[in-house]
Amino acid sequence: MEELLGKPVAEEIEKECLAFLAERQGVMPALALIRVGENEADITYEKAIKKRFLSLGLEVKTYQLSTDCSNEQLQEVLQFLNDDEEIHGIMVFLPLPSHLDKEAVFRTIKREKDVEGISRENMAGLILKDKNSFAPCTAQAVLEMCHFYNIPLAGREVCILGRSPVVGRPLSILMTNEDATVTLCHSKTSNIKEVTKRADVLVCCMGRAKAIGSSYCKEGATVIDVGTNWDEQGNQVGDVDFDTMATVAGKISPVPRGLGAVTTAVLAKQLLKAYSLQEKG
Amino acid sequence: MEELLGKPVAEEIEKECLAFLAERQGVMPALALIRVGENEADITYEKAIKKRFLSLGLEVKTYQLSTDCSNEQLQEVLQFLNDDEEIHGIMVFLPLPSHLDKEAVFRTIKREKDVEGISRENMAGLILKDKNSFAPCTAQAVLEMCHFYNIPLAGREVCILGRSPVVGRPLSILMTNEDATVTLCHSKTSNIKEVTKRADVLVCCMGRAKAIGSSYCKEGATVIDVGTNWDEQGNQVGDVDFDTMATVAGKISPVPRGLGAVTTAVLAKQLLKAYSLQEKG
Repeated sequence: MEELLGKPVAEEIEKECLAFLAERQGVMPALALIRVGENEADITYEKAIKKRFLSLGLEVKTYQLSTDCSNEQLQEVLQFLNDDEEIHGIMVFLPLPSHLDKEAVFRTIKREKDVEGISRENMAGLILKDKNSFAPCTAQAVLEMCHFYNIPLAGREVCILGRSPVVGRPLSILMTNEDATVTLCHSKTSNIKEVTKRADVLVCCMGRAKAIGSSYCKEGATVIDVGTNWDEQGNQVGDVDFDTMATVAGKISPVPRGLGAVTTAVLAKQLLKAYSLQEKG
Repeated sequence: MEELLGKPVAEEIEKECLAFLAERQGVMPALALIRVGENEADITYEKAIKKRFLSLGLEVKTYQLSTDCSNEQLQEVLQFLNDDEEIHGIMVFLPLPSHLDKEAVFRTIKREKDVEGISRENMAGLILKDKNSFAPCTAQAVLEMCHFYNIPLAGREVCILGRSPVVGRPLSILMTNEDATVTLCHSKTSNIKEVTKRADVLVCCMGRAKAIGSSYCKEGATVIDVGTNWDEQGNQVGDVDFDTMATVAGKISPVPRGLGAVTTAVLAKQLLKAYSLQEKG
């Protein structure tokens, strides 16, 4: 069994980012992070982004709003950032408090600054294979990992477990664009193991700790674990039960040390793509 | 083997349309058809739409442009229709001559008048399960047919053959929203028959005359034929080889007399939905 570690994939993507910046001496692409409240997971991710981005020579500016901020205040910040020529990408930590209108946020962020691919225009762009579209970073990270480790996708059966609008669904579109034969599974799928056992590549993105073990997997298949869950001891665990899965799968991306680092690197890459789009006007 | 005829499905949808209009005495929802050139298939479809719509009490206005019209002229017509309060839906016959910018057309049509669901906002709306979105009429017609004939979808395996952005891809999203386990197949799918034989519902939308026969089908499965092709004798034929398929499938929608009538009825239904959205402002 081969472990698909995230670090070398992230390093490869970051190398591309550094080459992009070396070609454009003195430019400083900037990402605006909008954080509502003091959610611990948001703060941890924010720190990780800042650390990686600064090491690449990218700027990160945080805009913090109080938990009880109004929709108007949030919209005002978004409009300001949309218009600010020194900001090239905008990321909003999700989920937002329930009184805030998430859909309005997705509608407001300018398409070319939407580095997380949450706007409708970018979502539809995936279906239309528009090269100027942004995919959600996590979904794109799964592709980057497959490409880095030379995991064939064209003509292969890819099974995706989980149909969220930010991972499972966009990933199913991206995988179809890669010429994979994609089956999208979810909580209502019958005979789930029968379905997942056909897969050459099994992607787990349901957000249920250690839910998927070896009985879901074909001998020698590749398993990509997108899950970020926490067990009772406070340890980060994936959707895959790694130890039993390791007895059957050919390749597994572990959690932690798997997709997480790749996702942050993809965010950097997409910021540079956003910079390019805005550079061209 | 049961034939899934389109006519009773269309009649049921049209009954709903008539009830909608009866509740709103005197209103006259209007569809604008934009036709570039004199393509025979477009003219035939236009006539069919006019006949059905007039019988329902709906208005249809054709805007014809010459084959060599400019993008500016086409945009001008679209803008005019977007602003015209007496037009509630806009449909453009596709494909357009190659010198015209299809993407620009999709971008210009107002979301709430986009009764064919070709705009990016409506496309993404399918992924987000937005009830105010429009699905492409043909994809929606497949769902209407399944519902009318009580074909179960939740938890069942649905296999879609063909990944076009107007039928296969949106249909795969709609079917996932119906809780089906969807596999999207295409020209690069390996072991295609192995994949299609798993399906409880097999939807054929590749646009290849009589390409899919009984060897692709599980005993007793439902087969929906979306194809509209013409054979050497000038007869309309589907993607399904009906005679051999009939020996294995449990239910088949024939071509002609199948999905075509349902698609036109769905267009009428979507015009009324567009009218409602605009009525509410």
